[in-house]
Amino acid sequence: MTESAARVLAPGDTIGILGGGQLGRMLAEAASALGLKVHVFCPEAGSPAFDVAAVHTLGAYEDTAALDAFAAQVDVVTYEFENVPGPTAAHLAARLPVRPGPKALAVAQDRLSEKDFLSAAGIALAGYARIDSLADLDAALTRFGGQGVLKTRRFGYDGKGQAMIRDAAKAGEAFAALGGKDLILEALIPFVREVSVVAARGVTGEVVAYDITENHHEHHILKTSTVPANVGMATADSAREIAGRIVTALDYVGIIGVEMFVVGTGADEHLLVNEIAPRVHNSGHWTQDACLVSQFEQHIRAVAGWPLGKATRHSDVVMENLIGAEADDWARILAEPNARLHLYGKAESRPGRKMGHVNRITPKR
Amino acid sequence: MTESAARVLAPGDTIGILGGGQLGRMLAEAASALGLKVHVFCPEAGSPAFDVAAVHTLGAYEDTAALDAFAAQVDVVTYEFENVPGPTAAHLAARLPVRPGPKALAVAQDRLSEKDFLSAAGIALAGYARIDSLADLDAALTRFGGQGVLKTRRFGYDGKGQAMIRDAAKAGEAFAALGGKDLILEALIPFVREVSVVAARGVTGEVVAYDITENHHEHHILKTSTVPANVGMATADSAREIAGRIVTALDYVGIIGVEMFVVGTGADEHLLVNEIAPRVHNSGHWTQDACLVSQFEQHIRAVAGWPLGKATRHSDVVMENLIGAEADDWARILAEPNARLHLYGKAESRPGRKMGHVNRITPKR
Repeated sequence: MTESAARVLAPGDTIGILGGGQLGRMLAEAASALGLKVHVFCPEAGSPAFDVAAVHTLGAYEDTAALDAFAAQVDVVTYEFENVPGPTAAHLAARLPVRPGPKALAVAQDRLSEKDFLSAAGIALAGYARIDSLADLDAALTRFGGQGVLKTRRFGYDGKGQAMIRDAAKAGEAFAALGGKDLILEALIPFVREVSVVAARGVTGEVVAYDITENHHEHHILKTSTVPANVGMATADSAREIAGRIVTALDYVGIIGVEMFVVGTGADEHLLVNEIAPRVHNSGHWTQDACLVSQFEQHIRAVAGWPLGKATRHSDVVMENLIGAEADDWARILAEPNARLHLYGKAESRPGRKMGHVNRITPKR
Repeated sequence: MTESAARVLAPGDTIGILGGGQLGRMLAEAASALGLKVHVFCPEAGSPAFDVAAVHTLGAYEDTAALDAFAAQVDVVTYEFENVPGPTAAHLAARLPVRPGPKALAVAQDRLSEKDFLSAAGIALAGYARIDSLADLDAALTRFGGQGVLKTRRFGYDGKGQAMIRDAAKAGEAFAALGGKDLILEALIPFVREVSVVAARGVTGEVVAYDITENHHEHHILKTSTVPANVGMATADSAREIAGRIVTALDYVGIIGVEMFVVGTGADEHLLVNEIAPRVHNSGHWTQDACLVSQFEQHIRAVAGWPLGKATRHSDVVMENLIGAEADDWARILAEPNARLHLYGKAESRPGRKMGHVNRITPKR
């Protein structure tokens, strides 16, 4: 069946979520407020999302019996991370709607197919090249001025699975360190800033895009997202338009995160897409407290086949991730007048682990 | 120990909630966003709050073994309804903090002790009289001009357990119908409008009161709450001040709902308190979408011993309860641009049953 003909959930129906981290937890909170039940499927015991799920399954993504039991108890399946194994998604999609669809997953799980898809859709990207041999790498480095970022095509995140090459003589070393195959080289972009857009598409094809966000990273992990971003109005409009073109090309259902580079200044300012994430996105957490409808409710509405809400923003906001011990400051943050604290209920704090976030709000005037 | 010396919860601790209805469900959603766990104790199978509780106990409030097991698993106890049996509250309070305290429960469970307490605290009330005999009733009716509302002292709600007396000749009939003892007669007030205030008090004694709300009832059930209320600024300030005086006099911890009548107009406009509810209150649901911190988060912060948030309101709002079949309109409401739908996940819709509510928002300019 086409997604536009897909079943619409009723209040009281159950949304199945693959993955039990903070994104699953915040999706479950949003589903609850809409009178929907949540069933979380996750292999890690004590996952944060279990605390707010009506039902949870502690199981491996390869356990087809557990997946069948899960599929029999839910009305639609979504996920909180892009590395859901392809066979898991396919197994479930043969039994009930999986939103976003397996196509979006397949595209997003491989940096090369993602970039091939985006350029085929007419989206501007930084230069990239498929790297399966040192010869591929040398040729690409020559094209890209002797430097670039070498990345594994699959399973990279937060800076893992990549190496910066600034000196072509060091290329062989990086090539070997990353396994010597299934790699991609991305040209280094002299970007002015990093931005992103979260957008939603419903089963009927309606698209809603939130305001462009300016992102700052520390140690390859998102640290802050600021809205409004320091970009021109044309760039802000273009960012939403690009996100809309991507979700439509993917026949997408749900929230997508689109990371972009701002290149050039003034009349020359323009956007190059860096990567997409087929799920609710850390750079969209600000929508919880600066918009009437958060990215989490928007995603739940979309996967339920319900009308999307407006993405109208009532406040300016800076979202700050609380990494590791930073979350120990919770009491001080709670006492800040315009701060909204969000904690994920993770039992153990570890360096580099996202423990929560805070949205600092300034009502628009 | 005094409440101000009370233990402060840490993220990951567990809040025990007595009662599993929509108020418990919305409290659990708010606790989750703050990284706290919830354990719901309720005698009704399939209670809405079970869906978002990390743990739930299906047990009777008189089952002391179940209460002991519950007490052993939680760090603080609160409740979503005022008719928690006194012995249940006392049994738990002997083991761990119960917030709001048993004193507030005892006062609020008996209309007579509630009014005696309020007048002792210097709060203006409508005339009332203790009624244990027809002679009491005749004398009180004479004082109140031959009419009044006769009510049972305990367990009345949504218009149940009360009778309007407009003709003294019918007094005996009403007296008998309500059991002929443990009654209270309230003078009829020619009020201009019904209003309420929800306020919170923390363990350190800090008080935060939300804006006064104008309420309209249908068939004795709250239908809409509108903010701002159509009252003068002095009356609005007075309402918050009255609520503050009440929570302080009760050494209260958590959210309280204070229902009042507006009497007189212009310079003559003033307030008479009707009743108090020692819990989050239906007339405070608007805070979910018109304030940075909702009454539910505020209550969780208070019972956790955490700093309270500001009650600042960023939008004007009308909250409408969805009663019975009205909730079948969910899809139309979802499509309204400035509406925020909240559904309670109740399996069965019955006439007069609160199935959800909608907050219709107008950002302040």
